[in-house]
Amino acid sequence: MKQFEQKLEKYAELAVKIGVNIQKDQTLVVNAPISSADFVRLVAKKAYDAGAKNVHVEWNDDELTRLKYDMAPFEAFKEAPVWKAKGYEEMAENGAAFMTIKSTDPELLKGVDPEKIAAANKAAGQAMDTFRSYIQSDKVSWLVISAPSKSWAAKVFPDAAEEEQEAKLWEAMFEATRVNTDDPVAAWEQHDQNLREKAAFLTEKQYKQLAFKAPGTDLKIDLPTGHIWLGGGGPNQDGVHFVANMPTEEVFTAPSKDGVNGTVRNTKPLNYGGNTIDGFTLTFENGKVVDYSAEVGGDTLKHLLDTDEGARRLGEVALVPHSSPISQSGILFYNTLYDENASNHIALGSAYSTCLKDGAKMSKEELSKNGLNTSITHVDFMIGSREMDIDGVLEDGTTEAIFRDGEWAI
Amino acid sequence: MKQFEQKLEKYAELAVKIGVNIQKDQTLVVNAPISSADFVRLVAKKAYDAGAKNVHVEWNDDELTRLKYDMAPFEAFKEAPVWKAKGYEEMAENGAAFMTIKSTDPELLKGVDPEKIAAANKAAGQAMDTFRSYIQSDKVSWLVISAPSKSWAAKVFPDAAEEEQEAKLWEAMFEATRVNTDDPVAAWEQHDQNLREKAAFLTEKQYKQLAFKAPGTDLKIDLPTGHIWLGGGGPNQDGVHFVANMPTEEVFTAPSKDGVNGTVRNTKPLNYGGNTIDGFTLTFENGKVVDYSAEVGGDTLKHLLDTDEGARRLGEVALVPHSSPISQSGILFYNTLYDENASNHIALGSAYSTCLKDGAKMSKEELSKNGLNTSITHVDFMIGSREMDIDGVLEDGTTEAIFRDGEWAI
Ligand SMILES: [Zn+2]
Ligand SMILES: [Zn+2]
Ligand SMILES: [Zn+2]
Ligand SMILES: [Zn+2]
Repeated sequence: MKQFEQKLEKYAELAVKIGVNIQKDQTLVVNAPISSADFVRLVAKKAYDAGAKNVHVEWNDDELTRLKYDMAPFEAFKEAPVWKAKGYEEMAENGAAFMTIKSTDPELLKGVDPEKIAAANKAAGQAMDTFRSYIQSDKVSWLVISAPSKSWAAKVFPDAAEEEQEAKLWEAMFEATRVNTDDPVAAWEQHDQNLREKAAFLTEKQYKQLAFKAPGTDLKIDLPTGHIWLGGGGPNQDGVHFVANMPTEEVFTAPSKDGVNGTVRNTKPLNYGGNTIDGFTLTFENGKVVDYSAEVGGDTLKHLLDTDEGARRLGEVALVPHSSPISQSGILFYNTLYDENASNHIALGSAYSTCLKDGAKMSKEELSKNGLNTSITHVDFMIGSREMDIDGVLEDGTTEAIFRDGEWAI
Repeated sequence: MKQFEQKLEKYAELAVKIGVNIQKDQTLVVNAPISSADFVRLVAKKAYDAGAKNVHVEWNDDELTRLKYDMAPFEAFKEAPVWKAKGYEEMAENGAAFMTIKSTDPELLKGVDPEKIAAANKAAGQAMDTFRSYIQSDKVSWLVISAPSKSWAAKVFPDAAEEEQEAKLWEAMFEATRVNTDDPVAAWEQHDQNLREKAAFLTEKQYKQLAFKAPGTDLKIDLPTGHIWLGGGGPNQDGVHFVANMPTEEVFTAPSKDGVNGTVRNTKPLNYGGNTIDGFTLTFENGKVVDYSAEVGGDTLKHLLDTDEGARRLGEVALVPHSSPISQSGILFYNTLYDENASNHIALGSAYSTCLKDGAKMSKEELSKNGLNTSITHVDFMIGSREMDIDGVLEDGTTEAIFRDGEWAI
């Protein structure tokens, strides 16, 4: 237990120092479930130790969320607290850093009316539109990190004894986030550099198209002129280096919103708003999903695709070798933050403006003109496997191998 | 334990039905400590059962509050989230009901720099000024109610076994809030009517002055023309009857802000911002505190009096018989909500505009012209005892006994 406390403290330190990289006199905004209170207090302590001026925590509770879905009338889901969204904007404009701690049971919303979920996501997406644009353009430092909850741990380790499930999930997280190394901060600095080098190499190449081949998948994704590959951390608009996801194993960029053609099949279940979508296929023509099918959660997939115009187009393409630590652990986390770092993936919805040269300074209209998708949603799903090959097509039509059998070929 | 669950559910039901008296399609805003999550979820369930549209919870955590006081720089306490205060205003304007659940350890802020506490109270008071005026004019239904926390229970029952302290405090609360009666809702309806009748009698009398006598106390409090005594519940501006405090045993009105003269001595310790002030005496001239002394917490008392101009004048005078259930329990709760309902008390700071005829419609300037005090603070302290006599002076100079030996004489 003593050892657990030490690991938890190191994890909090990574979140504060490598993740948001808190600066002296900065405010840290933490979004967290009340069940993660012990970890949140450690994060706050580390942040104040590092010179933070204030740690502002916005708490949430899965049980109340579920109670609301079960008992509140439909009208309640069409509203979101706009004043709170404005508060987030204001804190961002004043230079705060933002940390979100996620521990949601992947089955939290099982059986809930998908219309309610879609309405709630839409209302929240619209309210948080400006704040989301701040995050996606890296105006401020931000981090998404996870912490176990009882019910989530039970889903990941159904065969373990009940009192051991949470500890096992913590241990899997410590392993995946390099907390178990001798010097986690140094390990992250090295890892971060590797990812950034890979991204720089791909950006330099300026492939005009990526071609994905795997069982069930034959997909061609055009990349916009001036696209930028990102991986690991990057600077916020004040030049402070931060790492937005822990763990992170991906190198990613923005697809051309009108240049996606062919069919893709997912390789890991997608958890969307608490519901599972699996065994699904999407067919694209000129960027848009024109056909789809799903063995599980077809209705949820339909609602996702109908969120708005941009929800039927891609906003991200991300490369992760099949040998990544999370993939090697063999654990299915039922959590995008972890599972996306096990596998190549793409995302429906908005693109990150930082994936385009000078994109962070562009309006939505300009981004769209340059080929980047906009939407109130952004949902990653896994398409990688040991059987996936990816080719890059250069400006002159030459083809180069980027991935072979699920591994980097460059 | 089964019995405890049943009592907790009845307590939640009282809070929702008698306290805020939630209406169909109304939003309930709950302010609560994360340690009271089980009770909050019961409140939410009862509210949805009663037809609430939405239950919006704003959580807080004593440990983070203390951590901030210990570790954050002084500058951090001069700011309050104005956007959140605006959110409260907006929810009030849209007709939400507001429930605050308090469980703070009375010694939470022991040893904290009083300058930090004063700055934080001032910043919060200024940010919440408009919302406070909504509450004090009963624009919306609101309720303050308590729930135990480990550390608070330890303070109230220091001699009980550690694992029994919280249960003992719950039981004391259930007793004081009539949860232990056969039909708590019916018991509250009767109690509420008794308090309202007493208040109506005193309002009819229109005493021009109250004279308080007890050991260490010789105080004359003028009452403004058109003052209204309140007790039990009352209507909000939409005519919905609600009860703002549970428990409540008091009948109270607003003093004339320039008409308080003499000396008063407290009879129970005052907990202010986590610090204790005790054995204190205030001397008034023409409404203003011109001299004071304290055996404990003199520095905290000074900060309280220096909050703003209005903090040196009275905003409330409240009558509670010495035989009240809380007084009879003999328990010192170290919590104003409970302790004020054991004893006659007065408050430094702002007056309730509902204590004056048409006051809820008046501006601050008009209220002040009519003799009501304004301030960003409102702090009750106990002055009653078995030895207190109170006389009422009528318009024609006749004197009538209101209290004798700590009990109602009318
Ligand atoms: Zn990704
Ligand atoms: Zn993504
Ligand atoms: Zn009172
Ligand atoms: Zn009061």
